Order: sequence, then C-alpha cells, then structure tokens
Amino acid sequence: MNGKITVFGAGNVGGAVTRRLIERKLCKKVVLVDRSPGKAQGVALDILEASPVDLLEPVCLSGENLEETRDSDVVIVTAGARRTEGMTRDDLLRVNAQIVGECVAKAARYSPYAFHIIVSNPLNAMCHVAMRAGQIPPSRITGMAGILDACRFQYFIAKELNVSVENVQAMVLGEHGEDMLPVPRYSTVAGVPVAEMIPPERLADLVARTRDGGAEIIRLMQTSAFYAPASAVIQMVSAVVMDKRKILPCAAYLQGEYGVTGAFMGVPVKLGANGVEQIVEIELSDQERQALGASADKIKQQLAVLGQAC
Amino acid sequence: MNGKITVFGAGNVGGAVTRRLIERKLCKKVVLVDRSPGKAQGVALDILEASPVDLLEPVCLSGENLEETRDSDVVIVTAGARRTEGMTRDDLLRVNAQIVGECVAKAARYSPYAFHIIVSNPLNAMCHVAMRAGQIPPSRITGMAGILDACRFQYFIAKELNVSVENVQAMVLGEHGEDMLPVPRYSTVAGVPVAEMIPPERLADLVARTRDGGAEIIRLMQTSAFYAPASAVIQMVSAVVMDKRKILPCAAYLQGEYGVTGAFMGVPVKLGANGVEQIVEIELSDQERQALGASADKIKQQLAVLGQAC
Amino acid sequence: MNGKITVFGAGNVGGAVTRRLIERKLCKKVVLVDRSPGKAQGVALDILEASPVDLLEPVCLSGENLEETRDSDVVIVTAGARRTEGMTRDDLLRVNAQIVGECVAKAARYSPYAFHIIVSNPLNAMCHVAMRAGQIPPSRITGMAGILDACRFQYFIAKELNVSVENVQAMVLGEHGEDMLPVPRYSTVAGVPVAEMIPPERLADLVARTRDGGAEIIRLMQTSAFYAPASAVIQMVSAVVMDKRKILPCAAYLQGEYGVTGAFMGVPVKLGANGVEQIVEIELSDQERQALGASADKIKQQLAVLGQAC
Amino acid sequence: MNGKITVFGAGNVGGAVTRRLIERKLCKKVVLVDRSPGKAQGVALDILEASPVDLLEPVCLSGENLEETRDSDVVIVTAGARRTEGMTRDDLLRVNAQIVGECVAKAARYSPYAFHIIVSNPLNAMCHVAMRAGQIPPSRITGMAGILDACRFQYFIAKELNVSVENVQAMVLGEHGEDMLPVPRYSTVAGVPVAEMIPPERLADLVARTRDGGAEIIRLMQTSAFYAPASAVIQMVSAVVMDKRKILPCAAYLQGEYGVTGAFMGVPVKLGANGVEQIVEIELSDQERQALGASADKIKQQLAVLGQAC
Repeated sequence: MNGKITVFGAGNVGGAVTRRLIERKLCKKVVLVDRSPGKAQGVALDILEASPVDLLEPVCLSGENLEETRDSDVVIVTAGARRTEGMTRDDLLRVNAQIVGECVAKAARYSPYAFHIIVSNPLNAMCHVAMRAGQIPPSRITGMAGILDACRFQYFIAKELNVSVENVQAMVLGEHGEDMLPVPRYSTVAGVPVAEMIPPERLADLVARTRDGGAEIIRLMQTSAFYAPASAVIQMVSAVVMDKRKILPCAAYLQGEYGVTGAFMGVPVKLGANGVEQIVEIELSDQERQALGASADKIKQQLAVLGQAC
Repeated sequence: MNGKITVFGAGNVGGAVTRRLIERKLCKKVVLVDRSPGKAQGVALDILEASPVDLLEPVCLSGENLEETRDSDVVIVTAGARRTEGMTRDDLLRVNAQIVGECVAKAARYSPYAFHIIVSNPLNAMCHVAMRAGQIPPSRITGMAGILDACRFQYFIAKELNVSVENVQAMVLGEHGEDMLPVPRYSTVAGVPVAEMIPPERLADLVARTRDGGAEIIRLMQTSAFYAPASAVIQMVSAVVMDKRKILPCAAYLQGEYGVTGAFMGVPVKLGANGVEQIVEIELSDQERQALGASADKIKQQLAVLGQAC
Repeated sequence: MNGKITVFGAGNVGGAVTRRLIERKLCKKVVLVDRSPGKAQGVALDILEASPVDLLEPVCLSGENLEETRDSDVVIVTAGARRTEGMTRDDLLRVNAQIVGECVAKAARYSPYAFHIIVSNPLNAMCHVAMRAGQIPPSRITGMAGILDACRFQYFIAKELNVSVENVQAMVLGEHGEDMLPVPRYSTVAGVPVAEMIPPERLADLVARTRDGGAEIIRLMQTSAFYAPASAVIQMVSAVVMDKRKILPCAAYLQGEYGVTGAFMGVPVKLGANGVEQIVEIELSDQERQALGASADKIKQQLAVLGQAC
Repeated sequence: MNGKITVFGAGNVGGAVTRRLIERKLCKKVVLVDRSPGKAQGVALDILEASPVDLLEPVCLSGENLEETRDSDVVIVTAGARRTEGMTRDDLLRVNAQIVGECVAKAARYSPYAFHIIVSNPLNAMCHVAMRAGQIPPSRITGMAGILDACRFQYFIAKELNVSVENVQAMVLGEHGEDMLPVPRYSTVAGVPVAEMIPPERLADLVARTRDGGAEIIRLMQTSAFYAPASAVIQMVSAVVMDKRKILPCAAYLQGEYGVTGAFMGVPVKLGANGVEQIVEIELSDQERQALGASADKIKQQLAVLGQAC
C-alpha cells in the first residue's frame, strides 16, 4: 500500500469522506479532484486549515492534477450531476454515466491496481459503467449502498426497541433504491432475530421507511444525505486499507452467485487488502431470490439505455 | 452541567459543529434549530443514521421546538443570511442583527445560565447584538474568530517552514475581518519566535494571506468556509464543558482592557466552566494598541447603524 | 450525573481502567483508592504527566481520601489479594470478601446512588458480598465477566474463520470461571449462526479455550490479564454513563430469572442510566438451564463458606 | 514504509507502547519480543482479546521469533534489568549494555533501515551502545527522554498557574537524569515566557521537581513510571511514521552541535520520515552550555566503564 487515496467530486459527500479519511488516519495523502476549477483546492484548504486545532496528521491534500493521483490504493467516485427540472431519469443516467466513466477511465490509467468504490447514482448501473470504462477486474470494484441502507434499518430498529444501536445487526441486499431487500431474518438484536422482537406489521413499516430512507432526507433537508453516506464509504475503505476481511453488504458484480449473472447487486462481501475477497452466499427464500432477479433485470435495462453490454 | 447544547442554524457550520459535538462526546444531547421547516430534522436524521457504523454515543438530536433547548449549557449561534445581489453591507448587518437577536433572546429565556458562542457575521457587532438581546453577562458570551484566524496563520507558518503544525503557536487579535491583528511577536515555533525564523517581507505575506483567509476560501469553493470554523467552535466548547481553563483568542466584551471600552474585540481569554474567567492582557506596542482602538471605532459605527448603544 | 467515578485498587486493572476512563471522556473526575500508601497517587501522577502529550482533558485524579469519592456516579472495585503459596481457595475467598466488603461498605456511605461494577474474584461470590456489605439494590450492582469471556470467544472465532472481529457476536452466560457457558446458538458471524460455519469438534475446542482464557494468560505472562478486562469494564461504564441501554452479558442478581434465585449469574442485561434496566431472558435448552442451576449451587456453597445468606 | 514496528521488552512500558501503537493506528503489525518465554505472547494475547470490544484494527502481534521483525520501520527498545540489591550503578550499566546491545545488533540485521528509539536506562549511554552494536547511522537513532521530562515540567507549570496543559510549551535539554536542563526561557504559556508568570524561587521548585520526576513516581508507586513514558515514545513514533517533521526534545548524537562531540544529548530535533532530519540549535547561555558539556563528560565516563569509544 502506498497510503494514497483519490476522491472524485468535492461536493458534500466527497468533502466529508476526505475529512474523515484524514481523521481516521486511513491514508497519508488524499487527492481530491473536481470538475469545477478551484472547488477541490478550496475544500482541501478549508480542511487543512483545521489541522492546527484538530491535530490532524500531515496529510497532503491537493486537487485537479491527475498526475498526483498516481498509484492510489483506493479511488472513490462521488462525482455526478443532480437531476434538474425537465430532465428525465434516462437523461440523468446518461449524464452520470458520462461523468463516472470519464473519472474511472482516467483514474485507472494512473492507478491500475487501485480498489474502486462507486457512490454516484443510479448506483448499480454506475458500478457497471465504471468497471467497463476502467477495465477493472470485478474483485477491485464495488458500490456503496448496502451499508448505508443497513445502517438506516439498524437505526430504526434500535429506536423502535429503545436499545443501543451497537446491539443491532442488519442485512439489506439487492439494488440501492426502491427495490432494495431488507432481510429481517438475518437482522438481530444482541443475537436474537429481530422478527422475534418486533411484530410483522410494525417491522414492515421499518422496512418501508428504510427503502424510502434517501428520499426522506431529501424531503427534510432539501439536499441529498451526506453524513451517513460518508460514514458508509469510510467503513469500506477501512476494511480494505486495514485488511480487515470484514463481511459488509456492498454492490458487487455477480457471476452466477445468487442466481444472477452480469449485474452489480448488493450482497454480503468479504472486503480485505485484496478487495472483494469473497462473495458470501447466505440462504435466501424463493421470494427473495425472485426479487433479486427482478432487480437485476431492471439494472440491465438501464445498461441497455446506455448501450452497455452486461 | 446538564450535558445539553443548542445550535442555531443547520447550515454547513451548524451541521459540522453538531456532528463533532457528538463525535467528541462533548454533550449528551444536541438541539439543532433552524428557521426552514424540516431542515434541522433532516440534518439530525442524516447524522444519526451514521450512528450504527460510527458507534456514536446515543445523543438525542432534535429541532424546531425551543422547549427542548431548556437548560442548555452552551448555545451556539451560526444562523444568518448570506449577502445577496443588491444588498449593501448595512442591509446584511440589519438582517443578521434581526436573526441573531431573535435566536439569543429566545434561547436566553429557556437557558438563562448558558454560555453563548456567536459565529454569525459581522462577528463583533453580532456579539454585541446578542449580548443586548439576551441580556447576557459579558462573562458568558464570546465570538468565534481568533481561533480560526490563528489557525490559518499557524497553518501558513508551518507550511512555510516545513515543520509540524503541532509546533506552531500563533496569536491573532482584534476584529474578525480585514482589520484583524496577527501578532508575530507572540507566535512561536517550538518556543522560538517566528520572526527569528521567517524574514519580515515573507512574514508580511503570511499575515496578509491570513487576513484574506475567509475570502480565499469563498473564491475557491464558492461558499463560506465551514470545516475550520466548526473546529474552532469545538475548541471553545470543549474548554468550557471540560473546564479546561484554556487561554484562547476569542471576541470578548472589553471594559477598559487593552484601552477599549464597550466593544467585543479578539483578545486572549481564559475559558473554563465559568465562561470567560479572565481577559489576559499581553503587552502590545503603541501601534498595535492604536490598531485595536481603530477596530473598536469601526465596530461602534456598525452598532450605530443598528441603533445600538455600546 | 456528577461526572465522578471511583476506582478501588490501583493495580494493573485499576490503572488501565483509570487511564481509559479519561481517554474516553467518560467522566470529569476519577478518584483512585488503594490500600498501599502512595500507590494510588503514584499511578494518578504517572497518568496525569502524560496529559500534555496526549491532550487528555483535565480530569482530577486523587486517592486515599474517601471524602473525595462523595457522589460518584459509578464505583468500580478491582481490589483484591492474589493467591499466595499455602493459601487454599477458601482462604482467598475469605480474604477477598473482607477487602471487597470493606470497599463497598465505605463507598456506599459516600455515594448512595452509585452504580457498582465488581471485578474482584471469585467474581460471582464477590458481587454478593458487595451487595450485602453496601446494601445496594440489585439494579445497581453487576459483575464484569461475561463481556470478557464473550470477547475471548469472539476473538477465537474471528481467528478461526479469518474474518474481522467486528463481524462476530458471541454470548457467554453463567459463572465466570470453569463453569462458564458459551452459547454458540446465539453467537453469529455477520448474522449467520457460528455453528453453521465451524464444525462441532472445532467449536468445542474454541469453547474450551474460552473457559480456560484467564488461566492461559497467567501461564504466558505470569500475571493476570488486564488489558482485555479493563476494556470490558469500560464497555459497562459507557453503557451506564452514556445511557446506551445496551444489552451486555454481565453478572446480575437473579430472582427467579432463568430458574435461579438468590445468586449472581452471567446473563444478558440491558445497561443504561438506571443501571440494570432489564434482565433479558433468551431461550435456553434444558441442558443449559441445568448447567446454570449447577453453577448457582456452587456459588451458594462459596457464600456458605463466608457465612452469607443468599 | 512497511507498516511494521518491533518492540523489545514486554514489561509495563513495552506493553503500554504496543497497545497504543494499535489504538493510534501507527502501524499494521507490531512484533513484541521478550527474553522470558511466553511473556510477549501473553501480553499480545491479552491486548488482542480486547479487540472485539475496542474495535482495534487487525494488527498482528507476535513475538520471540526475530524473523518476524524483518523490515520493521521502527525498532523500540524498552528492555533492561532493574537494579537489584547489592548491584552497583556500574553493574547495572554493564547488564543493560549487554541486553540493549544484543537487541539492537539482532534487530539491525533484520531491519537495516529502521529508525531506532531507545528507552532503556541509563538512557544516553544506552543510545551510544545501541548505535555501536547495530552500526546505525546517527540520523536513525534517538533516545526517549526530553519529551517525558518536558511533559512533567509542562504539567507542573499548568497546575501552578491553573491553566490548561494545552497552553503550556516546555523545553528540557541535556541528560536524562539528575543533570537534565529545563530551559524556562523557551518555555511558554500561551506564547508568554513562563518566567514572566512564575516567580524565580517557585520556578526553581518546579525545575527541581521535574529533575526528580522519575524518582518521585518510583517512591509513590513502587515501580517505574510507564504511562507517561509510553505516551512520549508514541509522540516520537508518530512524528516518524506520519512524517510530521515535528521538533521534539530527544537524545541525539551530537557531532559538534552545542559544543558537544561524540555523545547523545537531549536537544530539539526535527523528526520525520527520514528520522532525525535536523538538530535544531537554539541559543543557550554560557552557563547552560557548560552544564551540557559537564553532562557529556559524565556520559563519556559511563562509556569508559563499558570500554566503548565515543
């Protein structure tokens, strides 16, 4: 490991990720890159000017010059446009595919052995676009979604039972979006399955709130979530950088696992120094497997819009 | 201490301060308040949804309902408008005086013994407005400015000398703005005065860059600094909450000290459980004292615009 | 909460607990008490002399004078003799009952509402002695054992499966000692029961190593474990001080739960600001219930040696 | 950097250093080595068994087998005997020279580019012995003393003035022991020289207490200090590993600086990725220079006892 991490996109998520990479000492240098001139330098400078009070270790931060990204251990892509008025979902899909594809194509040239974490939306399709654009092997690219979704589910369960979030484990599979698949069976409170503790109709409410989690934040704060997404990214980075071999729900490229071939899908993966070291297959019900298959089909349609093969 | 802190304003600074109050365990409950409906709840929810991965302790976050702010130990005011097109400086001054005054008047009713930290700009005048609006004794109200300014000066010195920021101490007095007064004489690197290590014209450049520090960030990132300002606020909160009796440069209400009467001015103060426990008077040159006096006059003119007595 | 914690015993465990209470900011004052004159002051001074480099917050540390313990929120008892040559187990039992009883009797006089955590061995009997000596209600006294035992079991499982310890949950009930009861059924790896991942005979080895965990450390380092025990104590303190309502395995006084009456036994309890807020009853097999009953009988025999009623 | 650190000596200092290297994420592997069979493994196991509760990152700990130390970035030597009854100071000097020399000779074979930090006493002579035994260039070997001494001085000043330790800078030069040389002139409180704030006779008391600091701890706790010494070592390690280029008082090999040639002496050095990157020469009074010279002579006498050339 060279101790260098590149972050594309100096918006709310990119900035928060950068600050926490430094606080958590997950690298010695962060290179922050943004399309808007000055943006990355400004964010980097604001973060660095806090170093005398926060005693942040002397990470170099810089931006814009892709040469500086050379030999990054990890590349994180948070760049992307927001949907503006008059834009269809397909329009947004095309715009972000363009942005994400360019970032990763460039990044891969300078850091051919990096591990890639995609955050841009629509997540599962963007992972695919990035994998193709950078010709990245599936073990070195994942999307951030399942941790964030599971996190929200855990938080709602903990509130419901008035118990510490530290006691709650949760599993959320599938697509990041309306078709995500929380799996209460593998979700536990101090080892006890959550379904034994929360009645079914109430649990269904929590599942529904989890599916709507991103939209709820936008409705309230008029902008996309970034605190919890940044924390989720940091979990993935630390598993790789510290070689934790930690099982985490991430969007991974399936090649037959869970009956899906040729799509990124949220599943439990073991992350370590070698990236995706294992796709962990847990037992699913027939209904759950069908739901995964339907999600995969939907993602393939998005790829078709982009003219991408699976 | 009741372990409760209120933050007015759920923008970039208010949000970052809230997250760090929780991370740093400086309280058991943060109440975040914002004028826009939903905003405070949204920011609070996004922060709390990170708690399962970041293992944040169970701080309650809430907002809007001022009853919940009752018996806060500390009140932090980050609320304020941005200058928009066609607005004069005096217009902005009036708008923010209105906002800050209202926040503190309400806050003081619910938390009559709180320590107040003002962050809204123009800083020195806003401290005055807040003190009057809440009828707060001078020992329980300060403005955040000197730490941020000193921080930037320290960072620039450390870069210049290629030495750890941890070795650099800096002192910046006076007004927060163009008339701030970095005092290189009390600024040291590992105990050695900085003037012995950096030639005068180069040091003047660093002083100038420090004065322009806030504007530099706006030019680059197209929005006001918030990472470093939030860190500076946290320094002040922790000195009070942990009863550190730490000497920090803050805007304090002078009543004869440094030859200034009736204005908030950045000076070294000792912060502890009792708020401003001491205004530390260091020796200044005649020129420096004059500069402070001129700054005080400028602030009094702003107060005159607002029709406030000193 | 008053922000004060008292620690009896300035040995390895007491010292490590003290340092971490400060590092983790779990209180504003620790009072460390030891029978040997000077010992507590020495340990406190050594810890405080690190404050300038570690930037520990200004916790007061002191010792010997019980008046200083007044109104502690938590009392932690690590005091106790070691078994020396020629001493029988019953001799040690009597010596430590004397020491622990005296500490808690005194502590309870100064801090009648404190939450008590007993660490001295033999653990379950010492909890009983302490409860009687200080006339402490069962909801405000627990023994530290289950977290440490579970911790070792988790670590062994994580090593066995080459997976992050962060993925492993484990449950260990019963007595702290040879009769402890690891419950693999409620022990999971990323939500999947451990019995599905480790073959029975291998799992039996890990269970055996867990039971022998304390002795293994003594054999290797020629003194009792203290790093992991201190961490376990800190978990309990933080659940209470931060009002986490966290379910943790602790020695709690059973009054019919799990079919046991009148003995401290390791079971899952919910710890929060009110101490033991709930004894969580999970389903046990007949064999497991019998094992618990046998453990309770053994503890009652120890109490008989001490002439204590149950 | 390979992310590996070797610690010789699994006693109180070595154990505390190991735990903090992991907590502070200063490396990915610590190899702990001790002469007593089992000792290093026991300490390592006790630390690792805390990992499930403290969520320590997955550092490998091991011991005894020097092959495992290969390519360490830093080697820390805490090994050494205690003075027992009937042992003269010269006897202890010889015993420890033997122990330290062997450790470093072996370590240097496996890690020829490591940075060495010597903690064993008598410190200045042991640095010399280590440098010769391992044929280590002066820029890659220092002794830990000045930070600890300065730390104590800072703590005493902060207590005296009832001010935060975070405001106090202190400088202590010279030998670690009775002849250490606190330099109040370069010791400041919030930038103000301490001599302007504490009357001379009182300051002399604090200087005397600092000189006696190690003995005071032994008198009180009946064993050598280890909390503060471990913290001081961690400061040095982090400056090197994080390439801080931080100026810290350390025992460095002088070759004419400060008028001393051929002895390790406590002076301000800049520590970074290249080890001792600079010996910083601050202005000393004639008296101070003489004191340094006398200290150097004393150390050379110790080396003569050991039959070592300077």
